[in-house]
Amino acid sequence: MDTVMTRAEDALAVRPVLLALDWGTSSLRAFLMDAAGTVVAQRASAHGIQNLPVAGIAGFERAFAELCSDWLGRWSGLPVVASGMVGSAQGWKEAPYVTCPADAQSLASQAASVDSALGVQMLIAPGVVFTPADGAPDVIRGEEIQIAGALAEHPAWSSQTCMAMPGTHSKWVRIKDGRIVGFATYMTGELFAVLCKHSILGRLMPDSAPADAAAADAAFAAGVQAARDSRPGDLPHQLFATRTLGLMRHLPPDVLKDYLSGLLIGHELVSGSIRMQEALEGDTPLLLVGEGALCRRYGQALGILGIKPAAQIGNTAPRGLFQFAIAAGLIAPAKETVHG
Amino acid sequence: MDTVMTRAEDALAVRPVLLALDWGTSSLRAFLMDAAGTVVAQRASAHGIQNLPVAGIAGFERAFAELCSDWLGRWSGLPVVASGMVGSAQGWKEAPYVTCPADAQSLASQAASVDSALGVQMLIAPGVVFTPADGAPDVIRGEEIQIAGALAEHPAWSSQTCMAMPGTHSKWVRIKDGRIVGFATYMTGELFAVLCKHSILGRLMPDSAPADAAAADAAFAAGVQAARDSRPGDLPHQLFATRTLGLMRHLPPDVLKDYLSGLLIGHELVSGSIRMQEALEGDTPLLLVGEGALCRRYGQALGILGIKPAAQIGNTAPRGLFQFAIAAGLIAPAKETVHG
Repeated sequence: MDTVMTRAEDALAVRPVLLALDWGTSSLRAFLMDAAGTVVAQRASAHGIQNLPVAGIAGFERAFAELCSDWLGRWSGLPVVASGMVGSAQGWKEAPYVTCPADAQSLASQAASVDSALGVQMLIAPGVVFTPADGAPDVIRGEEIQIAGALAEHPAWSSQTCMAMPGTHSKWVRIKDGRIVGFATYMTGELFAVLCKHSILGRLMPDSAPADAAAADAAFAAGVQAARDSRPGDLPHQLFATRTLGLMRHLPPDVLKDYLSGLLIGHELVSGSIRMQEALEGDTPLLLVGEGALCRRYGQALGILGIKPAAQIGNTAPRGLFQFAIAAGLIAPAKETVHG
Repeated sequence: MDTVMTRAEDALAVRPVLLALDWGTSSLRAFLMDAAGTVVAQRASAHGIQNLPVAGIAGFERAFAELCSDWLGRWSGLPVVASGMVGSAQGWKEAPYVTCPADAQSLASQAASVDSALGVQMLIAPGVVFTPADGAPDVIRGEEIQIAGALAEHPAWSSQTCMAMPGTHSKWVRIKDGRIVGFATYMTGELFAVLCKHSILGRLMPDSAPADAAAADAAFAAGVQAARDSRPGDLPHQLFATRTLGLMRHLPPDVLKDYLSGLLIGHELVSGSIRMQEALEGDTPLLLVGEGALCRRYGQALGILGIKPAAQIGNTAPRGLFQFAIAAGLIAPAKETVHG
């Protein structure tokens, strides 16, 4: 991925008030935001924390400078905030996890700051840790900022909501009174990738995309249905069907991936919705938060389970970073501005 | 693995009546058996079907000749039988799956035979396919012969039994009236290996063995308990605890593998025992069949779930191959012989 720059950038009519960085494992995204919390320019590079131009602190400095030094030169004194894996133990500076209940205010109160060689201070958001009464601790890092953004954009969801955030490590996050009160991680995306690439299940799978989109949808639905009908402990058994359905020619090889995807997403949705219903009241809205194509797959699977999400929203990290900066006292609360 | 030869071989006092081959993915084991069904000599090589000395049919011929040609020269006319992956689509000759209910008789009636360059005919046992009323088809290949052996050695178990056979792909097999009536495969061992080696869960795991055996046992038990307390769909979530328990220092890194092992084996046992109880009557004995160390781990886990296996037995493939040869009319039923 090369650096991506919006065309309108040179014509910026409004002085930005914040430089916000969404700095994850595989990419770095930078947003210039105005006083209303609107993104007025954005750029991205592939310099996620596991893909820095050089190792160590120098790598963070260089990735940051390559993407943002001209912006910082043009608008001196611009506050800088960041979220995501940049604040992990493997990041630029560790911002230890805050405990639930968590919101932009508690994130800001325990943020880490780092002085960059560019002469600016960067405020890094912590992740959140949740330890259920009867289970192992769980963590998020980056999603807490997306959630702060989603709640700022849709205040009606603050009272009580569940957000399902599909991905390599999907997160199911429960919100009450504007705060994160609990969550669960599902290794769905990583399980899918690892099983396709490294297990016997991948051996029957061709590299090519399915020849018949309807057959792929049907295989995906069959996987979701198997998950819906499962009982405790069944997954290590049900996975093997991805092989036997191919072996016995019940499914063509090019849709076995879809079956496996449906099975794994189905397990996540079955478990996630049970946990959501237990922890929240019955009419709590379920929101799908994330990338369009994956959210559509989740929407299909939810439909098979008879669950209708209240909405599907995209990446709200920039707005979340804006809220974080407000909570940290770096900028004033959002106000409507007139773009000239 | 070099060829392994028993010391007593040259002193064989009893003329063998059968050459039996247990020919799997990673190894080839050969057994000379007397008229009582006792192994009088055995050898093994690493020439499993995925590790042949040369590719194709020539590889099977050479692996067979290297291990057995002198035996066949010494005892001409010796019948030869084989079981395992040698009869799969990737084997020497495919012996297609027979349907449930299956026993030595139905295996023999649908066996495949191949003429070897050594001038002998080899009879290869088929695998078994089981298609539950409400699910995907499932297959075994090799275990059906072990089961025939176990039932020959322990006739009391023929009426109604469940055999749990731990391994890379564990099998839970239900027996009624001496026949295999159903089974389920669990990818437990492969899941463990793939997740340790290729997923984020392996990153916190050192190569070294646990420093404290009691801590390792406790971590294994905690994994089993998490599986016991799980609800449908929970595994993709619970797996992530293998990471967070390490990250939050609830478990030392060198026992995270034990936690993951307990979690996966626990899921298999929870599902396997539910399915067994549904399909068989309440007092059905559960047998553990397989390699000692792994069966002991399963025994530990069963104890945590409050289940006591009736017995643990080792590899019964040679005796099963003997029963298969009887059913095929190659040899007479076992009779007691006096070894001289």
